[in-house]
Amino acid sequence: MSKRGFASDNNAGVHPAIMEAMATVNQGHDIAYGGDPVTQRTIGRMKEIFGEQSEIFFVFIGTAANVLGLTAATQSHHAVICCETAHINVDECGAPEKFTGCKLISVPSPEGKLTVEEVKKQMQGLGFEHHVQPKVISITQSTELGTLYSLEEIREITSYAHSNKLLVHMDGARIANAAVAMNVGFYEMTHGAGVDFLSFGGTKNGMMYGEAVVFFDPAMAAFFKYQRKQGMQLASKMRYISAQFEAYLKNDIWKDNAQHANQMAQKLYLSVKDIPGVKITQKVESNAVFAIIPSEIIPKLQEQFFFYVWDEDRSEVRWMCSFDTTESDIENFTDLLRSLLT
Amino acid sequence: MSKRGFASDNNAGVHPAIMEAMATVNQGHDIAYGGDPVTQRTIGRMKEIFGEQSEIFFVFIGTAANVLGLTAATQSHHAVICCETAHINVDECGAPEKFTGCKLISVPSPEGKLTVEEVKKQMQGLGFEHHVQPKVISITQSTELGTLYSLEEIREITSYAHSNKLLVHMDGARIANAAVAMNVGFYEMTHGAGVDFLSFGGTKNGMMYGEAVVFFDPAMAAFFKYQRKQGMQLASKMRYISAQFEAYLKNDIWKDNAQHANQMAQKLYLSVKDIPGVKITQKVESNAVFAIIPSEIIPKLQEQFFFYVWDEDRSEVRWMCSFDTTESDIENFTDLLRSLLT
Amino acid sequence: MSKRGFASDNNAGVHPAIMEAMATVNQGHDIAYGGDPVTQRTIGRMKEIFGEQSEIFFVFIGTAANVLGLTAATQSHHAVICCETAHINVDECGAPEKFTGCKLISVPSPEGKLTVEEVKKQMQGLGFEHHVQPKVISITQSTELGTLYSLEEIREITSYAHSNKLLVHMDGARIANAAVAMNVGFYEMTHGAGVDFLSFGGTKNGMMYGEAVVFFDPAMAAFFKYQRKQGMQLASKMRYISAQFEAYLKNDIWKDNAQHANQMAQKLYLSVKDIPGVKITQKVESNAVFAIIPSEIIPKLQEQFFFYVWDEDRSEVRWMCSFDTTESDIENFTDLLRSLLT
Amino acid sequence: MSKRGFASDNNAGVHPAIMEAMATVNQGHDIAYGGDPVTQRTIGRMKEIFGEQSEIFFVFIGTAANVLGLTAATQSHHAVICCETAHINVDECGAPEKFTGCKLISVPSPEGKLTVEEVKKQMQGLGFEHHVQPKVISITQSTELGTLYSLEEIREITSYAHSNKLLVHMDGARIANAAVAMNVGFYEMTHGAGVDFLSFGGTKNGMMYGEAVVFFDPAMAAFFKYQRKQGMQLASKMRYISAQFEAYLKNDIWKDNAQHANQMAQKLYLSVKDIPGVKITQKVESNAVFAIIPSEIIPKLQEQFFFYVWDEDRSEVRWMCSFDTTESDIENFTDLLRSLLT
Repeated sequence: MSKRGFASDNNAGVHPAIMEAMATVNQGHDIAYGGDPVTQRTIGRMKEIFGEQSEIFFVFIGTAANVLGLTAATQSHHAVICCETAHINVDECGAPEKFTGCKLISVPSPEGKLTVEEVKKQMQGLGFEHHVQPKVISITQSTELGTLYSLEEIREITSYAHSNKLLVHMDGARIANAAVAMNVGFYEMTHGAGVDFLSFGGTKNGMMYGEAVVFFDPAMAAFFKYQRKQGMQLASKMRYISAQFEAYLKNDIWKDNAQHANQMAQKLYLSVKDIPGVKITQKVESNAVFAIIPSEIIPKLQEQFFFYVWDEDRSEVRWMCSFDTTESDIENFTDLLRSLLT
Repeated sequence: MSKRGFASDNNAGVHPAIMEAMATVNQGHDIAYGGDPVTQRTIGRMKEIFGEQSEIFFVFIGTAANVLGLTAATQSHHAVICCETAHINVDECGAPEKFTGCKLISVPSPEGKLTVEEVKKQMQGLGFEHHVQPKVISITQSTELGTLYSLEEIREITSYAHSNKLLVHMDGARIANAAVAMNVGFYEMTHGAGVDFLSFGGTKNGMMYGEAVVFFDPAMAAFFKYQRKQGMQLASKMRYISAQFEAYLKNDIWKDNAQHANQMAQKLYLSVKDIPGVKITQKVESNAVFAIIPSEIIPKLQEQFFFYVWDEDRSEVRWMCSFDTTESDIENFTDLLRSLLT
Repeated sequence: MSKRGFASDNNAGVHPAIMEAMATVNQGHDIAYGGDPVTQRTIGRMKEIFGEQSEIFFVFIGTAANVLGLTAATQSHHAVICCETAHINVDECGAPEKFTGCKLISVPSPEGKLTVEEVKKQMQGLGFEHHVQPKVISITQSTELGTLYSLEEIREITSYAHSNKLLVHMDGARIANAAVAMNVGFYEMTHGAGVDFLSFGGTKNGMMYGEAVVFFDPAMAAFFKYQRKQGMQLASKMRYISAQFEAYLKNDIWKDNAQHANQMAQKLYLSVKDIPGVKITQKVESNAVFAIIPSEIIPKLQEQFFFYVWDEDRSEVRWMCSFDTTESDIENFTDLLRSLLT
Repeated sequence: MSKRGFASDNNAGVHPAIMEAMATVNQGHDIAYGGDPVTQRTIGRMKEIFGEQSEIFFVFIGTAANVLGLTAATQSHHAVICCETAHINVDECGAPEKFTGCKLISVPSPEGKLTVEEVKKQMQGLGFEHHVQPKVISITQSTELGTLYSLEEIREITSYAHSNKLLVHMDGARIANAAVAMNVGFYEMTHGAGVDFLSFGGTKNGMMYGEAVVFFDPAMAAFFKYQRKQGMQLASKMRYISAQFEAYLKNDIWKDNAQHANQMAQKLYLSVKDIPGVKITQKVESNAVFAIIPSEIIPKLQEQFFFYVWDEDRSEVRWMCSFDTTESDIENFTDLLRSLLT
């Protein structure tokens, strides 16, 4: 059995109920590419959540959900404004630029959160053909630093955006963690707060693969079936993605998984925060803990637990908890950390 | 339970042994993005098949394997020469053009097969900056029309290509069907016959998702890890693709599946070929049967069995067999067809 | 002084009146990028020709006029249907594919002309996400083979297009030659016959550089100022393009130039058509003569006159006449040709 | 006659000697697309300047020189590091991203100049497939803020770049102004100081249109003829660009023009710097003066003189001098400015 750790919530496996759902649909023939009954049923279920007018499309991964959603929202002379720390900005190897042709304009985001104040500074050259034209603001919830936008903060952004003819995208790779942390429903967190389109993630919270692009205005989705296919994200045996989402949304599995991951992060935070030599650098609001620790102990910690160095210069590390993190994972880890620091 | 049919080999589900292999790796934590032991082990196994020097990368789907392989092989002023009937030409919604920037030059291919004679006609404007520069010949084995290139035909193409500084790509979405039909190994069929890079398919032969790009010259793969990520095809929980390939290549599952599909196609062919009103239009060499039947009976047949009309004008249909096609599927279908035609 | 010839109408220089107009505007300061009075005046003049509702943009070259016009008309999942012999298909080094992301679908065009019959064969997979979606038909007038579409032929194409929700683009690199040959005005030839957008050429008919993109429906031009800038075609000192167009359209210079070129082509045609060993291969309707001549005399002819071999296999050559072709050019050339053939 | 001003050096016209050179080559036929003797001769002359091994290509405009040079240097997973104020970053409507597919990473540059220190902060994720890979550092000389890199500063950047396997691009839209200001030759300023490729501008210093891309390593230019054509920048009647460059480089026209523009900027600077209410914001090292003036007087100044507001929030304006700026332009302007401020 392999080493455990806190590297990322995608180092965890697949929740058993989701695995079982995939096995359950594994019989007989089904029309490929989404024409099957499981897909139709699951999309129906998701429309109950996101609104009947919403349009929902499954893709393989979060990067694709982000990039193809942005493709639907932009032309190549547009710009997408996002945080410096946004996944689309630093972790997608330039896929947004390559595929949409747009410029990404990143703004300072010390807590992983975008502010209207920073966006305003980028609203330049409007109508001026030499300059890319801002079209989308992209925010991530929960953020790449484990922090959360309050509903009010989201509304402030969407309200500014709409007053300025911008659309708002939410990268919801970890939206479940945000939803349980804030005790707010998916709809309330997104379209209810003015979000125009969403990358709805599942892989980081117990699914195997598969994410959804959700458009709250069906007009945005007018060409999306072509954009998804051309974007190399149309699954032939789609029932296996749909079955995962169906199981994920049933019996509160998404909620239990996210809640557990968040609780483990809290436990980890509480266990390490007062250890001398550990400095917590971000609020622990979802399932991530960021900390500065002495650089010399990092390799020794990593011998026994997976995790990533976030910022080498500052000796800052990231510890992610997942749906399958155990209390003893945390205890063992904390014990080791403490022993290395004394 | 859903309707059975002959629509496509991707309407079938997942082979039980492959499903089981996915469940088996579903425990504990593993490094994401391919750093896990299952992936390392499976790539090792595939290097035994394709040669130690080969470079192997998993992606989600066949379209991506084709498009990203071509990306590695070209610059945007290049051209890719392929059959009119090639999947890259007609079934990928322009993804090759969009992603590589290249022009596809398609040549007549009445049997689904490209000939050197047709390629030669397109070798124009070499070195002339107004004209795209041919760089890759892409062939599909088994072809989109269910036919096969002999080893000699492949060698003729690769030999012409290499004499003219072109590379040869093989779209092997159904290479297993070709391999068993010809009783030829994967290596012998590909690099052994001069092929430079391969889309190695599994989904149409009993896997859930996942294909491999195989480069026989590692220099071609120099930037592929970036190209795959930017191409939105880097799976986080990659162990589940790897586990499928591992199971697929073990215990001759790939071979048994393909052999069965081919045999069923033969049985179907033999059962229908002499029915008055049925005209077989392509040699039945792998797992596809193409036939012209009276257009008025098509809707009635489709009420009970899935399948696609290939060419509406000619009333030509395609019937694909898969690893799970049963003898009774064929008997029931043949009975209905016969009854509709008399 | 350099060798004369029949290589292309762009081997000629600049008409003196156009040269003079450029010198005339060469004084003082003018706002860059089209804000100058010469540009405003010239666009006003062109709107008189193409209709007040039209939107007109200058670019540097014909390839850019074609590619950027198509950019305004398409999304990357669309297809552009054109002749096999179209400039966009064979002489723009794949710029249309690279810049628009679209597939070009080329159809057989033995006389350089597209027919509705051939277009119909390509109207496949409509609404089917695996297939690119036809959006634009592009025709060239006069064609790359020197032939002409009659107004009726244009109307047949535009009428079919509009019934099928397609737009029609006209590559008018040599539209002046067509207009004088048919004695038809620019408007009548284009929007009057249903054309939706036009590349309006000048360079091949006596200008130095500069072409115009004309959109007959202003909605098509909604983002064109950005597309032109991003397409690297926004001239800073635009007054020098505008001055050329202004002079070109004044005092019938465009007409005199085109008429002369056409007449010289007729003279050339009449002079050579009956020489034994010369076989004219296309109708001579504008300023081009296509002929098959014995391959062994081609190098000797080329020693004294520039021209291009069009089709090496057939030993077919192209002779273009331009606004500055002289009668003695033709006489000298014909004499040499005759002497080489006897 | 139109209003004069300080809007941009591209609001000036064409130097008479350059205009005359264009007229001089306007006779007879010449092979198109650069095969003409004027082009060959001019490239020969430029190789004397930039080194025999250099490869030189003419394009229409500076944006294209930048974008196509970067195209030759990158693949789409690369990043280009540049100043926040760089023309490629803010004034090309996203053409670099659209055409190369790369991400531009912009760094703070309060004086319009990039520092190694800022570049170092961006050298992250090297070899990590989730992150774009830095490949080019682009600097502008003279900068967009009218400042200059010393030779030593250039060498520091190129030396860091080469130690880190990066290439250095110089946007030389105004390199002539830098060369005369520093009394340094074009070669010494570029390849002599380690620059790998250059956009060599002429339009802003008295030419009509036309810029050159200069590769100091011919290997970088291997595919550039195709990239230029596909980039829609291959001029058919190229002799008219070449003739401009030939004249520009002869008889010190480039030098006289640039020197004059710089001197006028100095004069302007000296005339206004001590006027109460005027605050100079950048060192005046070439042909630009940046100043903060009271916002209420800007419209009144603009009634009589063209110029642009650079930063509305700070009420900062830019005044550019050009080869045809006169002493009386400056006196009149200064008089008006002074009168408005008292």
